[in-house]
Amino acid sequence: MKSLNVALIGTGYMGKCHAIAWNAVKTVYGDVARPMLATLCEVSEDLARERAAAFGFARATSDWRSIVEDPAIDVVSITTPNRFHAEMAIAALDAGKHVWCEKPMAPSLDDAVRMQDAAARSGRVALLGYNYIQNPAVRHMKKIIDDGVIGAVHHVRIEMDEDFMADAQAPMSWRSEKASGYGALDDFAVHPLSLLWTLFGGATHVFGDMTRPYATRPSPSGPIAVENWDCATALLRFPGNINASILVSRAAWGRKGRIAVQIFGSNGTLAFDQERFNEVQLFVRDGAEENQGFRTILMAPAHQPYGIFTPGAGHQLGFNDLKTIECRALIGLIAGEQRLAITFTDGGLQIERTVHAIARAAQEGHWVEV
Amino acid sequence: MKSLNVALIGTGYMGKCHAIAWNAVKTVYGDVARPMLATLCEVSEDLARERAAAFGFARATSDWRSIVEDPAIDVVSITTPNRFHAEMAIAALDAGKHVWCEKPMAPSLDDAVRMQDAAARSGRVALLGYNYIQNPAVRHMKKIIDDGVIGAVHHVRIEMDEDFMADAQAPMSWRSEKASGYGALDDFAVHPLSLLWTLFGGATHVFGDMTRPYATRPSPSGPIAVENWDCATALLRFPGNINASILVSRAAWGRKGRIAVQIFGSNGTLAFDQERFNEVQLFVRDGAEENQGFRTILMAPAHQPYGIFTPGAGHQLGFNDLKTIECRALIGLIAGEQRLAITFTDGGLQIERTVHAIARAAQEGHWVEV
Amino acid sequence: MKSLNVALIGTGYMGKCHAIAWNAVKTVYGDVARPMLATLCEVSEDLARERAAAFGFARATSDWRSIVEDPAIDVVSITTPNRFHAEMAIAALDAGKHVWCEKPMAPSLDDAVRMQDAAARSGRVALLGYNYIQNPAVRHMKKIIDDGVIGAVHHVRIEMDEDFMADAQAPMSWRSEKASGYGALDDFAVHPLSLLWTLFGGATHVFGDMTRPYATRPSPSGPIAVENWDCATALLRFPGNINASILVSRAAWGRKGRIAVQIFGSNGTLAFDQERFNEVQLFVRDGAEENQGFRTILMAPAHQPYGIFTPGAGHQLGFNDLKTIECRALIGLIAGEQRLAITFTDGGLQIERTVHAIARAAQEGHWVEV
Amino acid sequence: MKSLNVALIGTGYMGKCHAIAWNAVKTVYGDVARPMLATLCEVSEDLARERAAAFGFARATSDWRSIVEDPAIDVVSITTPNRFHAEMAIAALDAGKHVWCEKPMAPSLDDAVRMQDAAARSGRVALLGYNYIQNPAVRHMKKIIDDGVIGAVHHVRIEMDEDFMADAQAPMSWRSEKASGYGALDDFAVHPLSLLWTLFGGATHVFGDMTRPYATRPSPSGPIAVENWDCATALLRFPGNINASILVSRAAWGRKGRIAVQIFGSNGTLAFDQERFNEVQLFVRDGAEENQGFRTILMAPAHQPYGIFTPGAGHQLGFNDLKTIECRALIGLIAGEQRLAITFTDGGLQIERTVHAIARAAQEGHWVEV
Repeated sequence: MKSLNVALIGTGYMGKCHAIAWNAVKTVYGDVARPMLATLCEVSEDLARERAAAFGFARATSDWRSIVEDPAIDVVSITTPNRFHAEMAIAALDAGKHVWCEKPMAPSLDDAVRMQDAAARSGRVALLGYNYIQNPAVRHMKKIIDDGVIGAVHHVRIEMDEDFMADAQAPMSWRSEKASGYGALDDFAVHPLSLLWTLFGGATHVFGDMTRPYATRPSPSGPIAVENWDCATALLRFPGNINASILVSRAAWGRKGRIAVQIFGSNGTLAFDQERFNEVQLFVRDGAEENQGFRTILMAPAHQPYGIFTPGAGHQLGFNDLKTIECRALIGLIAGEQRLAITFTDGGLQIERTVHAIARAAQEGHWVEV
Repeated sequence: MKSLNVALIGTGYMGKCHAIAWNAVKTVYGDVARPMLATLCEVSEDLARERAAAFGFARATSDWRSIVEDPAIDVVSITTPNRFHAEMAIAALDAGKHVWCEKPMAPSLDDAVRMQDAAARSGRVALLGYNYIQNPAVRHMKKIIDDGVIGAVHHVRIEMDEDFMADAQAPMSWRSEKASGYGALDDFAVHPLSLLWTLFGGATHVFGDMTRPYATRPSPSGPIAVENWDCATALLRFPGNINASILVSRAAWGRKGRIAVQIFGSNGTLAFDQERFNEVQLFVRDGAEENQGFRTILMAPAHQPYGIFTPGAGHQLGFNDLKTIECRALIGLIAGEQRLAITFTDGGLQIERTVHAIARAAQEGHWVEV
Repeated sequence: MKSLNVALIGTGYMGKCHAIAWNAVKTVYGDVARPMLATLCEVSEDLARERAAAFGFARATSDWRSIVEDPAIDVVSITTPNRFHAEMAIAALDAGKHVWCEKPMAPSLDDAVRMQDAAARSGRVALLGYNYIQNPAVRHMKKIIDDGVIGAVHHVRIEMDEDFMADAQAPMSWRSEKASGYGALDDFAVHPLSLLWTLFGGATHVFGDMTRPYATRPSPSGPIAVENWDCATALLRFPGNINASILVSRAAWGRKGRIAVQIFGSNGTLAFDQERFNEVQLFVRDGAEENQGFRTILMAPAHQPYGIFTPGAGHQLGFNDLKTIECRALIGLIAGEQRLAITFTDGGLQIERTVHAIARAAQEGHWVEV
Repeated sequence: MKSLNVALIGTGYMGKCHAIAWNAVKTVYGDVARPMLATLCEVSEDLARERAAAFGFARATSDWRSIVEDPAIDVVSITTPNRFHAEMAIAALDAGKHVWCEKPMAPSLDDAVRMQDAAARSGRVALLGYNYIQNPAVRHMKKIIDDGVIGAVHHVRIEMDEDFMADAQAPMSWRSEKASGYGALDDFAVHPLSLLWTLFGGATHVFGDMTRPYATRPSPSGPIAVENWDCATALLRFPGNINASILVSRAAWGRKGRIAVQIFGSNGTLAFDQERFNEVQLFVRDGAEENQGFRTILMAPAHQPYGIFTPGAGHQLGFNDLKTIECRALIGLIAGEQRLAITFTDGGLQIERTVHAIARAAQEGHWVEV
């Protein structure tokens, strides 16, 4: 496995997260070549230089196109605001780079389609940053389902809630403007959709509803009408008689990173909460009825790749570790390995299509085919 | 307060529960007259006599009409199968008796309307057995909302799940036949609806979806098509920009009596689970942010009428205690007191209308006005 | 089974609890004769009459000796302050009555010995009110242990905590005076000891420690020295290489009725908390390691006598229901049945001896033989 | 801040953990110089070379003394088995290196004293790997206590349990031999002691008890007597009327990394469990009594240094992140900053003294002064 030359665009929340993963992946995994952290890009030269030093990149630039044009670069991490994803990812793919792009693909479905087309024609890897599916707990749930432990799944419920829009007195911002998208649906529903894709593939039919907790938000010039929706609900149908609901809110006081999952099968039930993401709840109807109950499975080396991080069962992985697992998946995909992942062509565009179908269903008030 | 002469029709699950409550109410509350347990009715004379002795009733009969015709009877507990509710309740009300009828009112909306009409013209109390709303925890949630502790409520989610229909190999039964109703919607959704009514009044618009985990169930003569739905989902709109979802399943392995409630307001969040019904979860955004979190409030004498049962905080009430609280509410209503309750005329019929509206929405695939 | 004539002395917290049980036992169980509630005794005639009416007793008295002398009385519930237990119980036993006496037996070991002697020579039932052991969850833990599900038990930890003495500013009271006993050790440790007796019999050696959170408590005339201990710890050795610890506090803010139990065996672990007393936690090392975890078993009809109260799994019993189970045990013992129970002669005195041995160990600073 | 030249001895469980931290610390923190990973030492040359490549170290050796003698090395990570700590740490300190040594210091108290002496005379930093105290949750508990939020602490309980010795059929190993130490007391109790030191300083008096779940363990030649103890209990007295208990077991089925902490104060209570180490439970007696309860505080940027890892509240740190925080503390200490840490001279030796005092108390059966 050859060492990859890496460029990183963006150094905010997820940019730093990518940087941590690129620094950690070799030490944690061992079985890959140590990536060469070549070039870091930020909007200002100064910030770029400062962050390149902090993150261990050899060079800094404020010109992202110079990265795309640099023949030495193998892979580009794109962690800029969503509206830049399409232009950057397409340019990188067209230049023969592999791409690691944060989710979602793009605000408009047209852009997402163009990104997928670029990935398909390039033959390069275009990985999306759906890091939650990289969690050993999620993989274990997938294994439990695939092994038939809970029988045939017929019903799934996923909630995703945070509270960063819960304060009614928070001033009007771009987040509440139409231009930023539907609101909670774009922000959050893609995570449940990535999980559903991972476990069950794509939905065929959807219904939707979107609501506003607060009709207006304050501004210096008085209240301004909120243009999108902080809460959304979707019902989904999957092949094989699997039905699902997604309930999301970014105005749910006290919820910080909740993704509560319940998966009901003909022989048992799985439950999971991202706020305690090192635990899986499993009910199986076996053994004496008097001793049945939901069991809390603590992640451990029995649940790979947990053990690659620590041999101590119940010692817990963290949020940034999930990105390191995703980074290992990217390196593997580039080397031709089979890896659990959502890419532009495999799942990514389907998720975007589903989001827009839910929004249309919400606006029209009836079921919509994806 | 005069002593009430009580008759009980039915001695199954809820019949025994009524009997326990009638026996307990005076000892627990003290502030009422001890009810006189006059007549018990069961389908066979022998069983009626046996149960009358067990439950402390003075007389036994297998003829429920004799109870209605008995001028000494003040109040009739009706705990027979749902399809008998209408005939018995209307006869009792028309004969001037007060009625304590188990939920739901009746399988058909027409019958529910007739029951409500009978209650209205009789001027008698016609209490429905929605005992979960009598829980001190539910009352405390109502108080928290009414006091403005969590601000303006905008979103509510309620799940209700059990697993008595989860076994795909369980043979076909009346429960899966069309004649028994919609399935999970009738069985379960009325509980969430009773809670929503108690807290927010009646829904104005609903959407619905109903699904079948198992298309057929086994029978001696081979698989038979299931005619109703073990899972149901409803979306609801209430006046005042309150939106709610109800998700119910009677095929949810491992869930035994789950009613998981989440209530989101502009200043905080409430959560509750009927499987731990002596606890309320409350998040309020006050004090130092670093010390905020969901708190688990254990029911205690501060949450009436808990203290009437025991002065020990955190010592827990049980399922049957909720019926005793309801029994006290009934006695109070008969005596002209104000009591938290759902009767044929106050909430009961509205809940039935909402159930049927959800079913129609599910069949037609669009929103329906209640 | 003949109907018992019952007298009740005391109508406070536990007196009402006994009254509720005597009223409920026949309706709940069916398989006993309905008790005759004959005489209620309170310190004032007026209160006695009022409570007799409330609790359904035929007669009222302020003279407890008249109860003992009444040949019609079969059984006496004693729920007075602990210091009266010995005199009343011994008189009742000597008069040939069965006794149902609240725990603990008596503040002094001498009195407890005399009570046990009286019970032994009378041949009557002298049941102690250790109602927590009557919990279906406790019986289920006993069954799990007896069935060998968790293998050979080697270690047990029990904590019991409440917060009624946690307020440092609460004024000095009799509870902090030496005359009332050791403090937390008397108040609380008897509950863990009753559980240990039920599961493993009597301890042979103990160590102890007792501490004071607050050296003084306020009074109108200034701070007064606290004379006993609000926190206590005990280590215990049982035959068969079973070791246990008991940690109790009545100054533990936020704990309301916590009795947290952990039982470690060679094949698994049990955990339980009285604040959620309808649940048992069980870890068994069986099946695939990747799916092992503590499971939460919700009490259900599979855990008798739960199903006698309600056929609904996970619907929960309450504190008062445990007393009804104990009442049924009493009736059974009187009728010569085998019933799980702690009586003066079977466990009761052993628990008292153990309490005093722990106190001596705490004072002397070394292990003490019980 | 100058860049440190780092050597690492040992590449097992904790060796890899150190390596991950050394690789991550600059990217995560930014405010330090990137460490130079100079030399890695393992027992075999081949393994040393392989791990040096994996962990990003420039050179590999199988001769640890060459590291101590290398003038270019600034700091040595020591992650070898405990019995080598003294020799290596003293040599490194004597050679003027800073030392980062895994806990505990050494099996014998004499060695620990010599290590402390070496640290004292060297003037170098000799940090111990008590990484659990670096947890933002632990720091937050410290802040809550220091801010007086729960008032004056009077009682602390800590349990630490895992199950790697729980299998009675696991063959006899060095872990059960006397030479390896006391057993659970050495293995585990040092963690609770490190927490107690961090929060309250050193204990003055201790009592102890140590027990064996299994008297023998199997071997090819038949059962062999176990020589140390898989369970231990300690009671501790601290200045200021603080009392504590420590209960530890390495034979507790189902416990994987449990460190359950309860801290009782005059105004509130803290609780914490290492198996969910991103959460702190806090009860404070403030506001309306009816709304009081234990609150679950999810770690967030309000709890530093959490936010340095991720800006997402409730997104969770992992076990390895705690080591990165500790690594930052080490770099800070070397640069003369004040940092929360346990070193040979500050806490480290006191913890060792306490362990040996507990063992003596257990053997002699009475309280021992530390």
